[in-house]
Amino acid sequence: MKKIITLVSAIAILGACAEKNSTNTITTSALSSEEKKDSTHIKQFFNTALTEGKSYEWLRDLTQNIGGRLSGSPEAAKAVVWGEQLMKNVGLDSVWLQPVMVPHWVRGEKEQAYYTINNQQKQVPICALGFSIATPENGITGEVVEVKSLDEAKKMGDQLSGKIVFFNGAFDETLINTFQAYGGCVGQRFSGARVCGELGAKAVIVRSMTNGINDYPHTGTMSYGDLPEDKQIPAAAISSRAAENLSNDLKANPNLQFYFKQSCKTLPDAPSHNVIGEIKGTENPEKIIVVGGHLDSWDLGEGAHDDGTGVVQSLEVAYLLKKNNIKPKNTIRVVFFMNEENGTRGAKEYAKQAKLNNEIHVAGLESDAGGHTPRGFSIDANKNNTELVKSWKKLLAPYGLHDLIKGGSGADISPLKNNEVTLVGYRPDSQRYFDYHHTVTDTFDKVNKRELELGSASMASLVYLMDKYLYTDDKVKP
Amino acid sequence: MKKIITLVSAIAILGACAEKNSTNTITTSALSSEEKKDSTHIKQFFNTALTEGKSYEWLRDLTQNIGGRLSGSPEAAKAVVWGEQLMKNVGLDSVWLQPVMVPHWVRGEKEQAYYTINNQQKQVPICALGFSIATPENGITGEVVEVKSLDEAKKMGDQLSGKIVFFNGAFDETLINTFQAYGGCVGQRFSGARVCGELGAKAVIVRSMTNGINDYPHTGTMSYGDLPEDKQIPAAAISSRAAENLSNDLKANPNLQFYFKQSCKTLPDAPSHNVIGEIKGTENPEKIIVVGGHLDSWDLGEGAHDDGTGVVQSLEVAYLLKKNNIKPKNTIRVVFFMNEENGTRGAKEYAKQAKLNNEIHVAGLESDAGGHTPRGFSIDANKNNTELVKSWKKLLAPYGLHDLIKGGSGADISPLKNNEVTLVGYRPDSQRYFDYHHTVTDTFDKVNKRELELGSASMASLVYLMDKYLYTDDKVKP
Repeated sequence: MKKIITLVSAIAILGACAEKNSTNTITTSALSSEEKKDSTHIKQFFNTALTEGKSYEWLRDLTQNIGGRLSGSPEAAKAVVWGEQLMKNVGLDSVWLQPVMVPHWVRGEKEQAYYTINNQQKQVPICALGFSIATPENGITGEVVEVKSLDEAKKMGDQLSGKIVFFNGAFDETLINTFQAYGGCVGQRFSGARVCGELGAKAVIVRSMTNGINDYPHTGTMSYGDLPEDKQIPAAAISSRAAENLSNDLKANPNLQFYFKQSCKTLPDAPSHNVIGEIKGTENPEKIIVVGGHLDSWDLGEGAHDDGTGVVQSLEVAYLLKKNNIKPKNTIRVVFFMNEENGTRGAKEYAKQAKLNNEIHVAGLESDAGGHTPRGFSIDANKNNTELVKSWKKLLAPYGLHDLIKGGSGADISPLKNNEVTLVGYRPDSQRYFDYHHTVTDTFDKVNKRELELGSASMASLVYLMDKYLYTDDKVKP
Repeated sequence: MKKIITLVSAIAILGACAEKNSTNTITTSALSSEEKKDSTHIKQFFNTALTEGKSYEWLRDLTQNIGGRLSGSPEAAKAVVWGEQLMKNVGLDSVWLQPVMVPHWVRGEKEQAYYTINNQQKQVPICALGFSIATPENGITGEVVEVKSLDEAKKMGDQLSGKIVFFNGAFDETLINTFQAYGGCVGQRFSGARVCGELGAKAVIVRSMTNGINDYPHTGTMSYGDLPEDKQIPAAAISSRAAENLSNDLKANPNLQFYFKQSCKTLPDAPSHNVIGEIKGTENPEKIIVVGGHLDSWDLGEGAHDDGTGVVQSLEVAYLLKKNNIKPKNTIRVVFFMNEENGTRGAKEYAKQAKLNNEIHVAGLESDAGGHTPRGFSIDANKNNTELVKSWKKLLAPYGLHDLIKGGSGADISPLKNNEVTLVGYRPDSQRYFDYHHTVTDTFDKVNKRELELGSASMASLVYLMDKYLYTDDKVKP
């Protein structure tokens, strides 16, 4: 009896393991013989990434030994040297630096903010927005007017004169894709100071672009547009929890005085580089498939998910092709773009030089949505090529890549857009991305090794398929 | 000119946001009018979970105020009281405790392990396996024999006599679903001491069941089977990094002496409870859909992903139904099962009582694979009902639930299995699960609020569909 009971227990426990095992099996029965070959190569990319992948250690080096690397900073310059050396180490056929002048904004001293309510001084986690001007040396004090959107601010007009305008539009948490929620709010951050400066406001403070409630101010770029200098006003982000608290405190005391101080400034443009390396194509070396992420990052945090992961994944695509002896027909070019965060000057320079040199880009793939678990790709291409990419779903779905959909690609490759080029954005799961985005918590420890490697292999698989199938079949030529 | 440049920059930056926005849109054009109604309800479950969800705060309370709660422990008893009160707070129609006797194993003092090589003592992170006996009070010292599997140990036979057997089979990292890798290794942990005790070994130490290399020993249950007491030997897990190091050190010094000490023991069975609550069905109150997770956890860590998340998600299913005024036709019963980790006594008692009371279970849903981002459901049902559940993919895929596949459900509901009942396991993304599983890092801070809530809403959606469509159409009756 004891034996039977123990056996039953053992079966129950081992059964429980087995029962959890049933997803993600790769079935090849519905594939053509050519697709079976593709399936085998794709499996090899995943196997290699998960057992001999380099991206995680590359990322550790970039984030922990260099760290945050805002355009124009010494860290960004170090990252260029690091990237060039790494591409050479991977054994790309050629590696070079493409010069580009970049904006050079510096944060200065750590920002301060507080207000007093019920005789208690409340400290507010705050950070300047990129391109903002400083406050006067002694800071700014003023009454606060809360609004939820740019439209609401515009409607208030002159009532904002002399006030600190507090943009408190929160993410729409019901949107499953958090990038949509970001898209619905980021206008406040980008244009709040331009709109309110025009209306004579004293400054703007913006609720951080993040899901939920946390204690970190999230920076990001803003613009004064064509606002004359005398109307430009300081702009900063406060944490979402501070925004909630301030909103409540304003209900109790609409006249409370908010104080903040920041010493950021924009210096003259600085020289920098895109880092470029390539594997020469065996059949059509003049045709280029570009794969990239951006090397610069915000100064807060270590630029891990934004976009250290995209950088190391892009290079790992080349590593995985080489390691598996894939000789691409077209040239596979890896680009570490400079200055995506505040100017996209690297992207513009890359596209400009491509045009000047009559380069033929057949495709581009960008990873700039974090290093989380794979979900799919977003395709910006003509109808035939969009359908072609979608047709690879049966090969990619076993790896969690179900979302092959029409959409944008990414800020760094989209300047290459025309009717002949197939541009694709890598789309990992978005749930955790805005926990870290542009803030001090975007650090190496937030990146899971397997999720990162699965992303590299996903990207390598797509590049392999694009190299093999784009422009080889009359039906899918643009 | 400046204006144009600034405008272009603004468009590029905002465009970059919009371009990341294109996944997970919910399209309803291909749905029937009834399916559109379903789609609306499902959207409501997600909206409610993401904006008024309770699961995250419930989980904080369970994990941080009670903590790890191994069967028979004071913490497990507290968790029962907590669960009963919480179900009442949610306003379930009835709530009760179902008595069950559970195993009562205690870890005792913190375990110690080390060995000496090159005159240096190396400390080894170690923990006893559940149900293991203690070492003698002064510990065990012995030579180490490394094997990679149970089969290899069996083949070595008498050579293991008097040795400490070191099971060093590692996860197969190429398996995309990490539960498959776990399934391939866990036999070493579960049966290593039984097999080696029979062969006269002195003890077993087992590489932790985890992906990659980390510093935490992962506990878990083991069994001596019908091994007589005098052949039972102590069993412990060591961290994967320690396993790698030990393996290397054994190559240099095959005779090194390994020492470890643990004082765990199994006490007499203890009284405990399953916690049960239900919403009475309006049409078929006698027909039951059970949804559950397990309330007990290992003593290391806080039992967050295993299985605090499953517990709070299961109750949130009922909360979401009530909050959205869904009156289920069948009875929806929430069960917090006791003792999944070492005995599944709660599950067995629940199934036994269901049979004794002639209860009709039409379906079951279990969440015991972590609180990560949704991927799908695994279906254990007859052919018709399996196809029926699969047919809901168009309603579920917009929420990332693409994997609707035949497979097992879970250890706690599988004792209910028969040809009439549709059993389903919730399957979130598996990449990070074994980083935390059964170790000190399985804590509240590892759970992302949105991922947890998306899981609750996924489960509520499935329960809603099962309630509406199972057993209503002649074609899908078993």
